[in-house]
Amino acid sequence: MQQSILKKMISQSKIKLINSLSKKKFRDLNQLYIAEGEKLVLDLIQSSVEIKWLIAQSSWLSNHTIPSELEIIETSDQYLKKISQLKTPPPVIAICKFPSKKLEDISMRKKLTIALDELQDPGNLGTIIRLADWFGVENIICSNNTVDAYNPKVVQATMGAIARVNIFYTDLQSFLSQQTQQGTPIYGTFLDGENIYNQKLSTDGIIVMGNEGKGISSSIEKLISNKLLIPSFSQNIEVSESLNVSTATAITLSEFRRNI
Amino acid sequence: MQQSILKKMISQSKIKLINSLSKKKFRDLNQLYIAEGEKLVLDLIQSSVEIKWLIAQSSWLSNHTIPSELEIIETSDQYLKKISQLKTPPPVIAICKFPSKKLEDISMRKKLTIALDELQDPGNLGTIIRLADWFGVENIICSNNTVDAYNPKVVQATMGAIARVNIFYTDLQSFLSQQTQQGTPIYGTFLDGENIYNQKLSTDGIIVMGNEGKGISSSIEKLISNKLLIPSFSQNIEVSESLNVSTATAITLSEFRRNI
Repeated sequence: MQQSILKKMISQSKIKLINSLSKKKFRDLNQLYIAEGEKLVLDLIQSSVEIKWLIAQSSWLSNHTIPSELEIIETSDQYLKKISQLKTPPPVIAICKFPSKKLEDISMRKKLTIALDELQDPGNLGTIIRLADWFGVENIICSNNTVDAYNPKVVQATMGAIARVNIFYTDLQSFLSQQTQQGTPIYGTFLDGENIYNQKLSTDGIIVMGNEGKGISSSIEKLISNKLLIPSFSQNIEVSESLNVSTATAITLSEFRRNI
Repeated sequence: MQQSILKKMISQSKIKLINSLSKKKFRDLNQLYIAEGEKLVLDLIQSSVEIKWLIAQSSWLSNHTIPSELEIIETSDQYLKKISQLKTPPPVIAICKFPSKKLEDISMRKKLTIALDELQDPGNLGTIIRLADWFGVENIICSNNTVDAYNPKVVQATMGAIARVNIFYTDLQSFLSQQTQQGTPIYGTFLDGENIYNQKLSTDGIIVMGNEGKGISSSIEKLISNKLLIPSFSQNIEVSESLNVSTATAITLSEFRRNI
């Protein structure tokens, strides 16, 4: 069926390389990450993501039409178990190349962009990438100390959205300073901000979301031009101190988009 | 300092009982649940939740003023480790009584209520309870097959909001049928619903959120009077099929409240 090279076995050196991809250091070194599971891999195959190896069960391969240019490694459950990072190994795993787009090639003009200041939880980053995809946000700019987007837990949580959103890591303070000089509005949510529901929100700009525990750091707060507040509607004075960062991002993006 | 009974040791029978609370069956039987960690327990102490035992390190107790009516068990890290369900045992654990409020005593009139149809993930339920607290939703009605709100993972994820939101389990179909007869509007989000951003949303009614994979079940869908859609703003045709249930709940509650 496929024209591509079929191999019955996956070499020990490949297994070693793939296992090393659970660590950021080796992902960066090899510029590769791992994506597991049928739905996610099928999404990635249809996307612009470059797949280095597609590793799958024979039965899965015979039931799916795979683009002929892909390098396929046909293997057994036994080997899938050796390379999978999930409890139950999936029938198919893709080893993907890091995207080649650079932050300096991207314009932030006339677009809504998300910036993440030291976000730590892989599940939150995955959810925010999925929200960006849903709300048509092309680019996410992460501070260098934000959790790695190619962490397998993040890749899994994005449900394929990682293929459709550009994610960059940079010195966030320098990046936002440059954007400020270019007149880009920079938004962030704070307890002393202006009620988001009463604001005229722009169709472009950067929305900064902060760390799960500490919020937006003081060095970044100085660069925020528009402080917003998502008000609580509770009658209870002991209401939760704040929304979690994923739900706050959902509400903020919804408010920016509904105004268009 | 405190007037309450201090015991240096926690009995084997108590340890056994507390360990059994990791299972729903024994939580229901004893009408008790476990809440772990300093911030959560301090929140619960200040709330209307009845605490059966407060189990804590001596040093924690000497640094905190505890209401005198509480039964305190002063113990060592060694015993806290035996009863904790967390990787790192916290300095304080509360064993809490189930609330005594009954669904039949609650009026849904002139209020916004959330109904959950077979929600399965403890993290999602925790986040939704926290959102209810933030947006002033007093009651959450769960189908009998929704994940248990007193599951330790849910209690942990609510960050104390479990003390401020009423959660009931019932036959959701019968409950919604009764509400329909009383003229309560019943909302749900669907891919073929009406754009939520263009609707006049009421200040009362029930918002149904569905299962993570299957959405709202067909028997419940029949009872929805107002189908809503959270539209995607992506240019990409392969956008994620849907938002995750926590972020969809966040956006929906935000839309209902902003209109007030």
